[in-house]
Amino acid sequence: MTGNKAIAYVGKGAVEVRDIGYPSLTLQDGPGVNPANVGRRCDHGVILKCVATNICGSDQHMVRGRTTAPEGLVLGHEITGEVVEVGRDVEFVKQGDLVSVPFNIACGRCRNCKEGQTGICLNVNPDRAGSAYGYVDMGGWVGGQAEYVMVPYADWNVLRFPDRDQAMEKILDLTMLSDIFPTGFHGCVTAGVGVGSTVYIAGAGPVGLAAAASAQLLGAAVVIVGDLNADRLAQARSFGCETIDISQGEPREQIEQLLGVAEVDSAVDAVGFEARGHGGDATTEKPATVLNSLMDLTRAGGSLGIPGLYVTGDPGAEDAAARQGSLSLNFGLGWAKSHSFATGQCPVMRYHRRLMMAILHDRVQIAKAVDARTIPLTEAPRGYQEFDQGAARKYVLDPHGLLPQRN
Amino acid sequence: MTGNKAIAYVGKGAVEVRDIGYPSLTLQDGPGVNPANVGRRCDHGVILKCVATNICGSDQHMVRGRTTAPEGLVLGHEITGEVVEVGRDVEFVKQGDLVSVPFNIACGRCRNCKEGQTGICLNVNPDRAGSAYGYVDMGGWVGGQAEYVMVPYADWNVLRFPDRDQAMEKILDLTMLSDIFPTGFHGCVTAGVGVGSTVYIAGAGPVGLAAAASAQLLGAAVVIVGDLNADRLAQARSFGCETIDISQGEPREQIEQLLGVAEVDSAVDAVGFEARGHGGDATTEKPATVLNSLMDLTRAGGSLGIPGLYVTGDPGAEDAAARQGSLSLNFGLGWAKSHSFATGQCPVMRYHRRLMMAILHDRVQIAKAVDARTIPLTEAPRGYQEFDQGAARKYVLDPHGLLPQRN
Amino acid sequence: MTGNKAIAYVGKGAVEVRDIGYPSLTLQDGPGVNPANVGRRCDHGVILKCVATNICGSDQHMVRGRTTAPEGLVLGHEITGEVVEVGRDVEFVKQGDLVSVPFNIACGRCRNCKEGQTGICLNVNPDRAGSAYGYVDMGGWVGGQAEYVMVPYADWNVLRFPDRDQAMEKILDLTMLSDIFPTGFHGCVTAGVGVGSTVYIAGAGPVGLAAAASAQLLGAAVVIVGDLNADRLAQARSFGCETIDISQGEPREQIEQLLGVAEVDSAVDAVGFEARGHGGDATTEKPATVLNSLMDLTRAGGSLGIPGLYVTGDPGAEDAAARQGSLSLNFGLGWAKSHSFATGQCPVMRYHRRLMMAILHDRVQIAKAVDARTIPLTEAPRGYQEFDQGAARKYVLDPHGLLPQRN
Amino acid sequence: MTGNKAIAYVGKGAVEVRDIGYPSLTLQDGPGVNPANVGRRCDHGVILKCVATNICGSDQHMVRGRTTAPEGLVLGHEITGEVVEVGRDVEFVKQGDLVSVPFNIACGRCRNCKEGQTGICLNVNPDRAGSAYGYVDMGGWVGGQAEYVMVPYADWNVLRFPDRDQAMEKILDLTMLSDIFPTGFHGCVTAGVGVGSTVYIAGAGPVGLAAAASAQLLGAAVVIVGDLNADRLAQARSFGCETIDISQGEPREQIEQLLGVAEVDSAVDAVGFEARGHGGDATTEKPATVLNSLMDLTRAGGSLGIPGLYVTGDPGAEDAAARQGSLSLNFGLGWAKSHSFATGQCPVMRYHRRLMMAILHDRVQIAKAVDARTIPLTEAPRGYQEFDQGAARKYVLDPHGLLPQRN
Repeated sequence: MTGNKAIAYVGKGAVEVRDIGYPSLTLQDGPGVNPANVGRRCDHGVILKCVATNICGSDQHMVRGRTTAPEGLVLGHEITGEVVEVGRDVEFVKQGDLVSVPFNIACGRCRNCKEGQTGICLNVNPDRAGSAYGYVDMGGWVGGQAEYVMVPYADWNVLRFPDRDQAMEKILDLTMLSDIFPTGFHGCVTAGVGVGSTVYIAGAGPVGLAAAASAQLLGAAVVIVGDLNADRLAQARSFGCETIDISQGEPREQIEQLLGVAEVDSAVDAVGFEARGHGGDATTEKPATVLNSLMDLTRAGGSLGIPGLYVTGDPGAEDAAARQGSLSLNFGLGWAKSHSFATGQCPVMRYHRRLMMAILHDRVQIAKAVDARTIPLTEAPRGYQEFDQGAARKYVLDPHGLLPQRN
Repeated sequence: MTGNKAIAYVGKGAVEVRDIGYPSLTLQDGPGVNPANVGRRCDHGVILKCVATNICGSDQHMVRGRTTAPEGLVLGHEITGEVVEVGRDVEFVKQGDLVSVPFNIACGRCRNCKEGQTGICLNVNPDRAGSAYGYVDMGGWVGGQAEYVMVPYADWNVLRFPDRDQAMEKILDLTMLSDIFPTGFHGCVTAGVGVGSTVYIAGAGPVGLAAAASAQLLGAAVVIVGDLNADRLAQARSFGCETIDISQGEPREQIEQLLGVAEVDSAVDAVGFEARGHGGDATTEKPATVLNSLMDLTRAGGSLGIPGLYVTGDPGAEDAAARQGSLSLNFGLGWAKSHSFATGQCPVMRYHRRLMMAILHDRVQIAKAVDARTIPLTEAPRGYQEFDQGAARKYVLDPHGLLPQRN
Repeated sequence: MTGNKAIAYVGKGAVEVRDIGYPSLTLQDGPGVNPANVGRRCDHGVILKCVATNICGSDQHMVRGRTTAPEGLVLGHEITGEVVEVGRDVEFVKQGDLVSVPFNIACGRCRNCKEGQTGICLNVNPDRAGSAYGYVDMGGWVGGQAEYVMVPYADWNVLRFPDRDQAMEKILDLTMLSDIFPTGFHGCVTAGVGVGSTVYIAGAGPVGLAAAASAQLLGAAVVIVGDLNADRLAQARSFGCETIDISQGEPREQIEQLLGVAEVDSAVDAVGFEARGHGGDATTEKPATVLNSLMDLTRAGGSLGIPGLYVTGDPGAEDAAARQGSLSLNFGLGWAKSHSFATGQCPVMRYHRRLMMAILHDRVQIAKAVDARTIPLTEAPRGYQEFDQGAARKYVLDPHGLLPQRN
Repeated sequence: MTGNKAIAYVGKGAVEVRDIGYPSLTLQDGPGVNPANVGRRCDHGVILKCVATNICGSDQHMVRGRTTAPEGLVLGHEITGEVVEVGRDVEFVKQGDLVSVPFNIACGRCRNCKEGQTGICLNVNPDRAGSAYGYVDMGGWVGGQAEYVMVPYADWNVLRFPDRDQAMEKILDLTMLSDIFPTGFHGCVTAGVGVGSTVYIAGAGPVGLAAAASAQLLGAAVVIVGDLNADRLAQARSFGCETIDISQGEPREQIEQLLGVAEVDSAVDAVGFEARGHGGDATTEKPATVLNSLMDLTRAGGSLGIPGLYVTGDPGAEDAAARQGSLSLNFGLGWAKSHSFATGQCPVMRYHRRLMMAILHDRVQIAKAVDARTIPLTEAPRGYQEFDQGAARKYVLDPHGLLPQRN
């Protein structure tokens, strides 16, 4: 029996490599595993050899100590891998298949799954609707920043790449299918982005950049990205986005210079609850800043897609309201403009097949857009640190030395 | 030249009957008329003899002094009437036609109108998108709680009843097409109400009751209405709704008793910014109460339709944030449940024809659902007062003595 | 081990009761079973004790000898039953559950199932997309006009009634969830039926009547049903439909008398390929008659929902073209009117839960609309015969004597 | 008063330049003008100086003598021009505006226009729903292959380019907004084309090429174009399409070579009723060939967008059925695959603004895709002739010498 090196959260600001043992097709007790899930049989699951597994901005919320994640929690919900073991109830996934795994775990049997709402599956998290690998309060499914990981309900969840060799040539693009590419795309779709749209994306981290690439793929006429971080804005410009430095003030005026009108058709919040203020306020957290700004700069009748994470409780927040997940929103402004607001985890399965097709047929270069960088699994602590400091990169962990480098 | 008795706002808590003169096909100066609209030619307009014109809950916001409405503003945006004069550029509306007028004035020529967003027409209100008759900050179009009113862009705006005699038999139903029936219906549609849905409607005023009747018409399995007012709840029960007295606490528990589960599929906010707290807080205004409650009681994946009015500024609010139209929302909860939120004025034109068909073919009894009551135009001050005190009725003004009584 | 009485097709015009043996969780060889499906393991399946199982108009195509169904084929795809045995891989369906089974068998794992297209599942029929119990060329899954039946992929396929006793009180309504109620509803949905619509339904057999009841549930203003059979038209009138006797000629004129205009908003073809001509042609088969008629009587911009079955080959057809499934359609007329056409098997799962809710909460009386009649399983041959002769009834077989009578 | 040179149909196979006199804001009698439209006042109209006006494939149906178009009919429904005169009822279009005119004339006041169905406006053609400039049986609105043309209901119909100089730089792209670009786009939208789709376009004439460019803009993964004409196929390859020479047989096999599967997700019929057979039948007209082929090569669950024109009567057809607009369709095959079919004139207004944005912001090169070629108005006869002979070009007439050349 082989070991299984994995990345574990070990306290505020720190992750480390641990051997957590080769996975089984039963969910076992461990840090963060919901008691009701301990011992859950997963004959519908497969074991993957992780070929690529990315660090996500939402991992950072845990690592920064902004959540109640327990020490020892194994991280990682962006997983691409090769099937090395197949549970007895798995019928259509085969050993040797190279597959992408949606970050949201879904049973494929409940009302929400049947309605395509796999982000809020009712059967995998005993606490509430929705789940993910390696995430606090999500049921306790073991994370995939590891050499091996167990994926339940595999016939339902995984996306098989049609040709293994072709896939390995684009593996740094395809690894974005597990989360950030569909998440950015979902932000755009729910914001109503289509052919000819003008779009503002708040945030130029990987999800924001993925949203920008998605907006282009959807035919948007103009894609504008706003952030405080000059490197990330440069990255956005590298593939044809307009950019706005929000440390210079509210985006409205800069939008007018770009478009001739001060409002966009659609807006995407790719920042979430750890937002900071704009202009002079840019150094303090202002969790409602992005949403209020988007209502200001979106045209009447426009829609806001909100893939950025907002939480029900934030122990590290600066004020009591935010600690309860309560935001002071200029809702009257949004109402006057007949805005619509779409929230929640992206249901990855709704999009990943078609985005795979776009990648395989060279319609989008998502790895380039987010500046994917390969590092060994064992260097994940460095990756977390650089990413936390604002590196304009997407870190892809390479547990088995199978990945190419970019740049 | 005939005179034109109309209802004018004359200061906090007071309305009175005034003669404002017979309308012309030019928008003239007067209380609340936007300077940029003074003198605007309306050869595309018609003059209506008002057959039925209703008092609306949103009129009450002005009459209670919660807005900057100027003294002398002529009220009334729920208008049904007979065409008595036709502008030279009107082609398809004829003298003698009996028509329903959407409360939102729309040009039928701008991008938003072409996209069916008539609630946010770009050409009729110089201040911002969207307009209405007799309403503060809406451009200054003269209200229709009057004997006569001018309706611009008539070919676009009005809905002609196919048969005048048939229409007069159902006139108390058809008068609801100008606002509250489509508004309640829009709340349900945007909340995703369909066949088999479970629905919670916050508020049993006329819009709430219209939303409840709409939910039934849309095939909802269970319609639950919550309010503090016992008479209004009794009215809701009179046509088959379940009801919840929210003075007894949060609705969640009562919903569980009704449905076996504590959450509904869809929720409609038919209250808006003048909401009061639930349970022990029911005597003080808590503008975010309804929205926070709806996030609590709506299932993951559900949608919130929000026809209830939220404002960009509320000079009468109890705290500084609410005076700016800012609400303290539990947005993290909504996000965790992947909720969608739809806001804004109902685009009446999207729905009024089909709702007319449902009325004319006896598929819905909307006048009965909202307990429509006819009173003479000159008794409007009494109607405003009783309605403000919570009467479970919808007051229909009868400027020309053409309406039947109900009850 | 118990036996298992079932209804088998035994040659043109004839069915008989046979004991086919208690089902197993493996698909075994037998009449009509696709060789590639023989021996297929179904640990994801359950065995049901059939509580109610209906005769369907599409069964008649086989019994009339209009297909290549082999002698011995066990019929029945409208199944409601109690779970008596659970495969080892079934997680959420429990012994004792009372469930409705969609007639379309679906794997819950392929692209089409994930996209909600369960009528064209890619994994259950080796010949082509889509499958059903007890049907020719559909893979060979054994029919459910039987005491017991095996249902594969049970976690995905079945709809559990929330309360067994409550369900048995409405069992004659709930049994329509397996096929005709969703099928009629799908016809209406794809025809664009909504609140206020005018609708024409071609055919007053059970699917047509179910479509008519669905149109009412969806809020249609006027529902018009056309047929040649006076009893079936009387049945349609019994729940508020308008009717047209098409033996009197094309429906257009009669529609004008009913509506004041000669065209409807939406039309549903609940007849399919065994259509006969209108007016004087009513005694000969004219497979394109219904579709051509619907293009004639549907307004420009309207849609046609086509749940009525059209086949790729019809060995019993009167001319060579129809034997190839080719129809002579007035397509130019439909094009000039910008019609849309929606075809195919109803994906039952898309609708059955919400229709169950409507039944359980008394929003629709579908058993009454189709005049459901209970007969013992052993009297199925009589049921087939009466139904073939045009009885305005829906025959519900009662294998275990558990059903109530109607009338 | 200036003259007005225009292109008139003068008999089978022939067009010529005639002076038809400067237009007025009243529709006057003339070849093809519906008697009920003679004398119709158009104070809502504008007079345009035609800057660019294209020859369309649907003009060819008339010129080939396949219709009842009268001698003298002035052709041209693809119009871009400068406003030189404004009717008294026009409020938002100004003299000097450079505008694109949708080929479908629409009133902006009827039910269909309000619902966005401007291709079947109820008020402009006394014969039936829908109209166009310069087209037989469409009401008699004078065509725009002319120096000047009158455009009715101008506030509703025209699309103003935001900046005149910027527009003139892309005028050969923008001229495609009046018809073929939206028409091809509509074909794709109604065929369900989206990000990642595989698409087959039947026909590589200008509409087919526009559909191909549209599919790319919508994010399609693979766009395959089929035709008999080698030059047109080469043109399709010039901007990244795959191509199939259908003179070599049914496309299914060639599709399998391209995609690995024999079916596409979506299919567009950009040919219409003058289709010829495939393979050995390629020299004879087979009006149902394209539709039958598309049913064969589209996956179960896919959709067919059918912008190609089908007519209610075709006096030049080869058999009696086709002369009635009746086609022999393999409808059973489409039904078995749950296909949807969308037909009719493209409602240009639904798309032209967003496509303009895509052009102005360099997201699409439509003039290049269709190989737009400028010729003087007076050389239109040559353009018609070359186009009829299969030139892989789109002819743009230049009445006032304002256009650039391409190539």
